[in-house]
Amino acid sequence: MKLADIQTPAAIIDVSRMNRNIERMQRRMDALGVRFRPHVKTSKCLAVIDAQRGAGARGITVSTLKEAEHCFAHGVLDILYAVGMAPTKLARAADLRRRGCELKLVTDTAASAHAMAEFGRQHVQSLDVLIEIDTDGHRSGIGPDDPQLLKVARVLHEGGMNLCGVMTHAGSSYGCHTPEALRTVAERERALCVLAAERIRDSGLPCPTVSVGSTPTALAADHLDGVTEVRAGVYVFFDLCMLNVGVCAMEDLALSVLSTVIGHQAENGWAIIDGGWMALSRDRSTQQQIVDFGYGQICSRDGVVIPDYFVGSVNQEHGIVSRAGIPDADIVHRFPVGTQLRVLPNHACATGAQFSEYQALNDSGTISTWSRINGW
Amino acid sequence: MKLADIQTPAAIIDVSRMNRNIERMQRRMDALGVRFRPHVKTSKCLAVIDAQRGAGARGITVSTLKEAEHCFAHGVLDILYAVGMAPTKLARAADLRRRGCELKLVTDTAASAHAMAEFGRQHVQSLDVLIEIDTDGHRSGIGPDDPQLLKVARVLHEGGMNLCGVMTHAGSSYGCHTPEALRTVAERERALCVLAAERIRDSGLPCPTVSVGSTPTALAADHLDGVTEVRAGVYVFFDLCMLNVGVCAMEDLALSVLSTVIGHQAENGWAIIDGGWMALSRDRSTQQQIVDFGYGQICSRDGVVIPDYFVGSVNQEHGIVSRAGIPDADIVHRFPVGTQLRVLPNHACATGAQFSEYQALNDSGTISTWSRINGW
Repeated sequence: MKLADIQTPAAIIDVSRMNRNIERMQRRMDALGVRFRPHVKTSKCLAVIDAQRGAGARGITVSTLKEAEHCFAHGVLDILYAVGMAPTKLARAADLRRRGCELKLVTDTAASAHAMAEFGRQHVQSLDVLIEIDTDGHRSGIGPDDPQLLKVARVLHEGGMNLCGVMTHAGSSYGCHTPEALRTVAERERALCVLAAERIRDSGLPCPTVSVGSTPTALAADHLDGVTEVRAGVYVFFDLCMLNVGVCAMEDLALSVLSTVIGHQAENGWAIIDGGWMALSRDRSTQQQIVDFGYGQICSRDGVVIPDYFVGSVNQEHGIVSRAGIPDADIVHRFPVGTQLRVLPNHACATGAQFSEYQALNDSGTISTWSRINGW
Repeated sequence: MKLADIQTPAAIIDVSRMNRNIERMQRRMDALGVRFRPHVKTSKCLAVIDAQRGAGARGITVSTLKEAEHCFAHGVLDILYAVGMAPTKLARAADLRRRGCELKLVTDTAASAHAMAEFGRQHVQSLDVLIEIDTDGHRSGIGPDDPQLLKVARVLHEGGMNLCGVMTHAGSSYGCHTPEALRTVAERERALCVLAAERIRDSGLPCPTVSVGSTPTALAADHLDGVTEVRAGVYVFFDLCMLNVGVCAMEDLALSVLSTVIGHQAENGWAIIDGGWMALSRDRSTQQQIVDFGYGQICSRDGVVIPDYFVGSVNQEHGIVSRAGIPDADIVHRFPVGTQLRVLPNHACATGAQFSEYQALNDSGTISTWSRINGW
């Protein structure tokens, strides 16, 4: 099969770029002296996870119990489910543990910690639990100085749970676009998570794991003193959002959407492609960043960037391609009906999620179909 | 199974609301004297399509050939694929026709029409084709006055294709919010599509079908003189976008996302739920409308709207629920960890697309799982 034979829209992985991204991150984590636990929510794909583990990753991070179940069935034992635990999901998590999965859960509330302890008592089962720390105010977690931190730690420990440590995610790093700002966020993520661990240890409780990470902070940190492991996800493909953040080059972007020109509005300078929001997603992450790429950057079928051409708007199965600035009066001839174009996405996690499978393209031109673990 | 037992996030269909929406639209189309051909891109679900056909729909509209293939296998013969035809998809379309599917294709360019005619010559096969008309400048189609219209009609007719008629979609109706504005867009959609048909007929070519539609214009049109059929999709579930447009009430919204509270940031007045953009989609259709609902309106598990509580922001698997205006200092007790909440979405098509199946909830409380036809 060649690209020309693929039914569009299709999600294309440039395998050599992906492998380069995996090597880059793993080498950096090795140099910083930390365990690397990639977040597989970006790819949700066993072939990609195999490549990450082959390069040196130890354990994985997941965003759904379904990812955990599929990865465990594939032979991955050490799995961190990095979303605050809902009590109604404890039975599924416990089942994975009974079958031998070293599943780790996350909480940031006394209510959830109590639910875990109560579940553990009822089922005579200890669970591995990390406490989520808030290091930038963007979402979840307990502040390192918050009295709740030691309360939750005690509820877990005294309730028979295995208090494994602390974890944080400085999601606000996605809003940075200078090396200085990134280093500042990275150092804050590190220092506050280490501080939380020290407070727990000072209270006489165990806290072996200190887990931090996001793709930007993982690539920006000067040192990771006190940190034992790093998590990052989107680095595996990178995307236009990460390009704007400044942690990759356009040539690193490994995920694109192959689409076909189906029509034009010549007077407007529009080419219509069969890649709408159903394929690209509605993600507009670059809207607030230094360069707004619309719904994606246009490339040739072979992946060569065509400067200034973007997907400017989308409907469900239609994308409108236009040139920034002066409309292209010659777009009908530049991109005739039937032309295949590749679109680099704003956010690889969101665009990947629109597909049930990838077409993985090797340098030799061979294409393999890799399935995704969608759903919950 | 009860709602309390469902693993969250989950897409819930309120079946009695859905059936009411289906009845309302069908009665209206019957009163206007037109054939109703629902667009199934919203639900992509055979159980929903069966309900639409049972109420009187004749034929369906699809947004992907995969929908066409599954619906044909399910016994639906009369199918309009309402996205401009890519030449590379002709073989799949022709295969459906050879197997007895009355598949109709769409084009708005001479290049695509030539590709169809050439394909037909090579495979000794005539295809049913409609010409897409641009009645509001929002996306695709040929203007009714454009000389291209008759050129494309002739390419099809002389190339041995069966020129079935014209079709248009006034997508700009989604930007309206007064009855007057909607009636104006609806009348323009009708009049310009009928004009295009008359120009084709005046040139001596056939044009039996005049197909128009969007949910807002279908519900706003005063009359549909000259129109033979109407297409509409999102009416089956409605959503917050349609509420803002003014064509439904909050009590008509039939699709919601069931989610669970997994934590809080008490000082911010936030409850964190396990419904992030992976479940709700990144669609922010209401951002530009008269009421901005964030990423969705919060309801109790039983579907009762909780005024002023919205999903204000999302990450992949996290949604942040907050109160508009003054933060809720008591949110930890209002929505304790483990509380199930339902979220009414901005755009039912986009939110449905994040799921592989629905949980269909009847008035009696019984729940059935209905699968979706995702992908291409």
